[in-house]
Amino acid sequence: MYHHLKKLMYTVRVDTPDPVFGKMLLEQFGGANGELAAAMQYSIQGLNCDDVARKDMLMDIGTEELSHLEVVGTLARMHLRPMKGDRSAAEADPLIAIVGGGGVSLNNSQGNPWTADYLKISGQLEVDLRSNIAAEARAKITYENLIRFTDDPGTIDALNFLMTREITHMKVFSLALDSMGRGPFSIGDLPPNPEWVNKYFNDSTGTSDFGETDERGPWNEGGDWEFVQSPAVEEFKGTGNGSGRSTSAAAGAETRSSGKRK
Amino acid sequence: MYHHLKKLMYTVRVDTPDPVFGKMLLEQFGGANGELAAAMQYSIQGLNCDDVARKDMLMDIGTEELSHLEVVGTLARMHLRPMKGDRSAAEADPLIAIVGGGGVSLNNSQGNPWTADYLKISGQLEVDLRSNIAAEARAKITYENLIRFTDDPGTIDALNFLMTREITHMKVFSLALDSMGRGPFSIGDLPPNPEWVNKYFNDSTGTSDFGETDERGPWNEGGDWEFVQSPAVEEFKGTGNGSGRSTSAAAGAETRSSGKRK
Amino acid sequence: MYHHLKKLMYTVRVDTPDPVFGKMLLEQFGGANGELAAAMQYSIQGLNCDDVARKDMLMDIGTEELSHLEVVGTLARMHLRPMKGDRSAAEADPLIAIVGGGGVSLNNSQGNPWTADYLKISGQLEVDLRSNIAAEARAKITYENLIRFTDDPGTIDALNFLMTREITHMKVFSLALDSMGRGPFSIGDLPPNPEWVNKYFNDSTGTSDFGETDERGPWNEGGDWEFVQSPAVEEFKGTGNGSGRSTSAAAGAETRSSGKRK
Amino acid sequence: MYHHLKKLMYTVRVDTPDPVFGKMLLEQFGGANGELAAAMQYSIQGLNCDDVARKDMLMDIGTEELSHLEVVGTLARMHLRPMKGDRSAAEADPLIAIVGGGGVSLNNSQGNPWTADYLKISGQLEVDLRSNIAAEARAKITYENLIRFTDDPGTIDALNFLMTREITHMKVFSLALDSMGRGPFSIGDLPPNPEWVNKYFNDSTGTSDFGETDERGPWNEGGDWEFVQSPAVEEFKGTGNGSGRSTSAAAGAETRSSGKRK
Amino acid sequence: MYHHLKKLMYTVRVDTPDPVFGKMLLEQFGGANGELAAAMQYSIQGLNCDDVARKDMLMDIGTEELSHLEVVGTLARMHLRPMKGDRSAAEADPLIAIVGGGGVSLNNSQGNPWTADYLKISGQLEVDLRSNIAAEARAKITYENLIRFTDDPGTIDALNFLMTREITHMKVFSLALDSMGRGPFSIGDLPPNPEWVNKYFNDSTGTSDFGETDERGPWNEGGDWEFVQSPAVEEFKGTGNGSGRSTSAAAGAETRSSGKRK
Amino acid sequence: MYHHLKKLMYTVRVDTPDPVFGKMLLEQFGGANGELAAAMQYSIQGLNCDDVARKDMLMDIGTEELSHLEVVGTLARMHLRPMKGDRSAAEADPLIAIVGGGGVSLNNSQGNPWTADYLKISGQLEVDLRSNIAAEARAKITYENLIRFTDDPGTIDALNFLMTREITHMKVFSLALDSMGRGPFSIGDLPPNPEWVNKYFNDSTGTSDFGETDERGPWNEGGDWEFVQSPAVEEFKGTGNGSGRSTSAAAGAETRSSGKRK
Repeated sequence: MYHHLKKLMYTVRVDTPDPVFGKMLLEQFGGANGELAAAMQYSIQGLNCDDVARKDMLMDIGTEELSHLEVVGTLARMHLRPMKGDRSAAEADPLIAIVGGGGVSLNNSQGNPWTADYLKISGQLEVDLRSNIAAEARAKITYENLIRFTDDPGTIDALNFLMTREITHMKVFSLALDSMGRGPFSIGDLPPNPEWVNKYFNDSTGTSDFGETDERGPWNEGGDWEFVQSPAVEEFKGTGNGSGRSTSAAAGAETRSSGKRK
Repeated sequence: MYHHLKKLMYTVRVDTPDPVFGKMLLEQFGGANGELAAAMQYSIQGLNCDDVARKDMLMDIGTEELSHLEVVGTLARMHLRPMKGDRSAAEADPLIAIVGGGGVSLNNSQGNPWTADYLKISGQLEVDLRSNIAAEARAKITYENLIRFTDDPGTIDALNFLMTREITHMKVFSLALDSMGRGPFSIGDLPPNPEWVNKYFNDSTGTSDFGETDERGPWNEGGDWEFVQSPAVEEFKGTGNGSGRSTSAAAGAETRSSGKRK
Repeated sequence: MYHHLKKLMYTVRVDTPDPVFGKMLLEQFGGANGELAAAMQYSIQGLNCDDVARKDMLMDIGTEELSHLEVVGTLARMHLRPMKGDRSAAEADPLIAIVGGGGVSLNNSQGNPWTADYLKISGQLEVDLRSNIAAEARAKITYENLIRFTDDPGTIDALNFLMTREITHMKVFSLALDSMGRGPFSIGDLPPNPEWVNKYFNDSTGTSDFGETDERGPWNEGGDWEFVQSPAVEEFKGTGNGSGRSTSAAAGAETRSSGKRK
Repeated sequence: MYHHLKKLMYTVRVDTPDPVFGKMLLEQFGGANGELAAAMQYSIQGLNCDDVARKDMLMDIGTEELSHLEVVGTLARMHLRPMKGDRSAAEADPLIAIVGGGGVSLNNSQGNPWTADYLKISGQLEVDLRSNIAAEARAKITYENLIRFTDDPGTIDALNFLMTREITHMKVFSLALDSMGRGPFSIGDLPPNPEWVNKYFNDSTGTSDFGETDERGPWNEGGDWEFVQSPAVEEFKGTGNGSGRSTSAAAGAETRSSGKRK
Repeated sequence: MYHHLKKLMYTVRVDTPDPVFGKMLLEQFGGANGELAAAMQYSIQGLNCDDVARKDMLMDIGTEELSHLEVVGTLARMHLRPMKGDRSAAEADPLIAIVGGGGVSLNNSQGNPWTADYLKISGQLEVDLRSNIAAEARAKITYENLIRFTDDPGTIDALNFLMTREITHMKVFSLALDSMGRGPFSIGDLPPNPEWVNKYFNDSTGTSDFGETDERGPWNEGGDWEFVQSPAVEEFKGTGNGSGRSTSAAAGAETRSSGKRK
Repeated sequence: MYHHLKKLMYTVRVDTPDPVFGKMLLEQFGGANGELAAAMQYSIQGLNCDDVARKDMLMDIGTEELSHLEVVGTLARMHLRPMKGDRSAAEADPLIAIVGGGGVSLNNSQGNPWTADYLKISGQLEVDLRSNIAAEARAKITYENLIRFTDDPGTIDALNFLMTREITHMKVFSLALDSMGRGPFSIGDLPPNPEWVNKYFNDSTGTSDFGETDERGPWNEGGDWEFVQSPAVEEFKGTGNGSGRSTSAAAGAETRSSGKRK
């Protein structure tokens, strides 16, 4: 992990401190998709990585995220500082006001402490890269949501910078994955079982006011897809009886179980 | 979420109960990438989803994962049952043995309680689908890792079935995402800032025995990439002095800050 | 756990969305006594249960609670949806607004993630049934507390339905326990030690302004009860000295220790 | 909470230290049903209680449980002490050995830190008493499970004492509840809705190898019970079609929804 | 832990209940530096302690902190009680209002459940005493912060009492540590390595707008201190190149590695 | 936080991988007193700090701890790598083996995820420095405990280096605190109440076999100390009656309450 944090030339500035928004910002400081989560996820994946080139890339981005942690923390502190003496500001986040004396802590926007349960580290490079692509998408949308709730120009500027870098990282991880030459659904070493892999089970059906009607799309029709009625439904259509052990198994289920018993 | 759990025709069978392996199996019952995590992530995303067709799909798969929770739980219980009276079996997992009386609990392979911190739910459909693709990749590799540690044929058969379905779901989520017609790096509504989006910062460098040499690949060269030396390094090359406030800013950083100040 | 979720014919409707109340509702979605907690507690107890009849009952109710999770979640989402764009609504729950995009997450009314630490699963059927009776009482009172804080007719209607079902389940669990033919205080296999079982220790005494005077009732007088003065008090009455190792043990304590040393 | 901890005359003794069993014992020190959980649950309920007599009772038992915490902790420390210098003992619980230097910590048998999520405190006395009855049942069975895994006479003696007191407390709480004169299913102030309270929904059905056949018992037949077929099943029997919005609703569901819409 | 809780003669009184402040007070009831944390930390350290005199002291203070838990809890309940029926009060803490019925729970000011992760227990007396000195400093400042946010005389009086006792305890722990006759930096048995112990690494440098200029003080100059430039900086000064494996190692680092390789 | 991680010239080497010891090492990677906890505690304190000189110092040490995180992680990975394919190695830590594929994760030695609850950040510099002194003492003893459980020379060498640096940091924090010129018990702005600050309450007394006899030392006699008998004991000596509301209050308590009521 031997790395240099990048130089932050740019001035984080806040025109009008807004303690409630400061608390919201903590989501990206100590929250599930925040900067520490990103920094730790990529750096530790890098530590576990045997692919020299992609290890360096994981460390580059892990290091950059650590510097983003500083940007978000500085921004949040500027917004939260009035909490120190002001009761109405303090009500926005008692934890910050009373325990933290108006400084930032490693909590999310609801005061929950950061936890390593947020991290997705699998010890398998191609799986880790997919986790990272998704993580960057979540971080991008979180910054977008934050921008929607503030009018402060300095704050928006910083959030726009941070939001943009998440897209950059998303590209990096995607290109690093593509260049490994594995197919889009090739994970690990063991092949999927051909008996089951192309069946789509229509498990959720319903007629209630807010039930889901059965919908079709490229994800369950065409290609190799076999659309299989919910086995439960099949059973009851066949027997008209759900209160006992049926003597003849339902079609969809039969297919499956006969396959298992050969 | 009005749905039917699919009929489980297939017989979960265990030839030789192995309490230590039973504890490992709990990873997919109450662990971070396990079946409850999958069921809850997809079902709650579905509850929040306004796209009728993809909502039904999320509910179908959420429902199927709940039935997988039962398969894994049944398998784990068969392996753990000897814990009830046997001291050496009990040592494998005191929590199961003493509190649970040999039954399963909603813990992972280390006895940690399941937590909603495992879930990735963003309220934005295309982001959720990316999270799900990654989640399925992690679940697939976890089943593969489990298969590596058991010789029991019934157990391997069940794990092979569950592992295969994760690949199926990965396909479903990918096709559902592709058919939304958004570009691979198009997340949310706000565009990335063109000033920053194509820069790759070489933040982690080093010469130590286990340091990372700087590596290049499609993720940081070619295309639109601009490879930017670590600003920290640039600074010290320029000034030969890191112990004070430099009078002339380093090149890479300058580029950036000048952009911010126009 | 092979089960069908019950059909939800009834229309969840909300006349006036109230984001702050929506956040309160999350208590029964992702909170300690909420619907997921109930669904998981009963279903996993069922998975561990060797009594075929009561196992089916645990699964019936576990399944019903899963459908209640959907009712509460739908209700909460209707109340929380305005968070998506409205800053003052967003302040009610930054986590929902910023991370969740206005959708529900598996948190309680304070933003704490759901945890399996809420569950009480013992691997012993009669103990589990007692845990369930208590759980239903807590869920009932929580719905009652929620009803107190809203005027919305659609919301009250749904909460009244859910509240009622908790009483139903409480009856079911009580009858299932009674029909096992065990005495009210018969737990497990080992009998209590007759030397200790009928003693009531008066451990908390006091004369302070808000101290508790010693009170008597059927729980410590009459029947087989032996009311034993706080051993600490006895000691100091006997010796008038609490600052050293007393040479003659106090009465109440003596009784006990002599029993242990025979 | 002004109280005296009871005098512990009795000698905790351990003949043969057993570090693995010591770790198991921590379940009752820092675990979900352990002594701190009991002490805190009852004492805090007492703090919230307006019924003077039962408040004193809650404080008496809360105080006694604190003294039991000391008994269990002393016992566990005697078993764990060899961890200090012995590598094979240390493997039983690295956390105790490395961080704790062989002393006890407030963790459970798997090393999880104690959490207030274990507590059930409702602010409603009759609900709290039911939670306490269940808590005592769980504590009793946990001690019984522990006794099964040790042969050490001193340890068994202490566990037998502690196990017995749980039965005592269970009696106390039951008598305190009974003497409040509330019916067995009377919780809070709001009555259950008569339309729903006596229906038993047969939600979990199945024909799979480990599916649950539908079972009847006093908990769903006789008395006021109305046994209602799973609405989902009813629907499919009626229409033979689960893939669309049914035009005629199923019987069981109809009953319900018509009730809601009057 | 055989102890008596001290008599609380003093009347906790609240002139004007303030639910939002009541929630803030919970920080010292169920928070990281609160009274339960103190009581448990000292009592469990005492349980592990072989030094008879300091063990008694740890128990004395652990016991006193338990009585403080009651003072804080009583105070918080007086402030929170209006939550029971008042919607606007309830919004201050939904968890207390809905689940707790207006009573206190073992949570902090943000609704997070108390966790044993707050505790610092090392199994080494002199280390524990240092942890306790720091814990008392944190508790003192938390009470000071709380006093700043209330005008209620009864509340201020109680908080002043509690705040003062933390200073008392800080003195006790310091004197107990000093009288052990260990040097200020003597921890455990193993001596520090003389090669490394007196070097101060200037690892954080910078020229950014909010970067830290390098500062000197008694903590890195004078005495035995050797001030070592950040090895990373040294390297780049030496080679002017951070993008490859340098052939000649930088000065500061060399010193170190040559020491390791002798 | 603009900083450079120090160059790690020194080769982490492991002669004989020992997966069980690797798991123990994780305590200092993702545990309560480990390197991430140190790095985050100091860096975030620095972010909140207005004292320019000591802010730089906090950043220097926070940065150094991040590089130590890398050393410990590298060491742990070398010990854990055999888990990838070896069942008996995998049993040492199923989480690492199955989820992590033999790589490190941010967990402690018992598999608990790292949590910000470990951190002590008060927003008050002199309090933070005291927390840091204690934190370094705990880290030092943890490394010492680890050294006791391995014979591997490379591992011992690395742990000796890390252990030594904790003593260095302890010195730095102590000197930074001393040079602030505050008295040893001067915390924050509000003075302690002279009525209470010099009283030592003898709250824990006892005569049981493992009870604590009352001990005296510089922490409760001499100087300004007033040794006050446990109020509870005083009461019972006076009245010989603990079962009712006493008419005359006990001496020690009286002193106190009279003070409060003036």
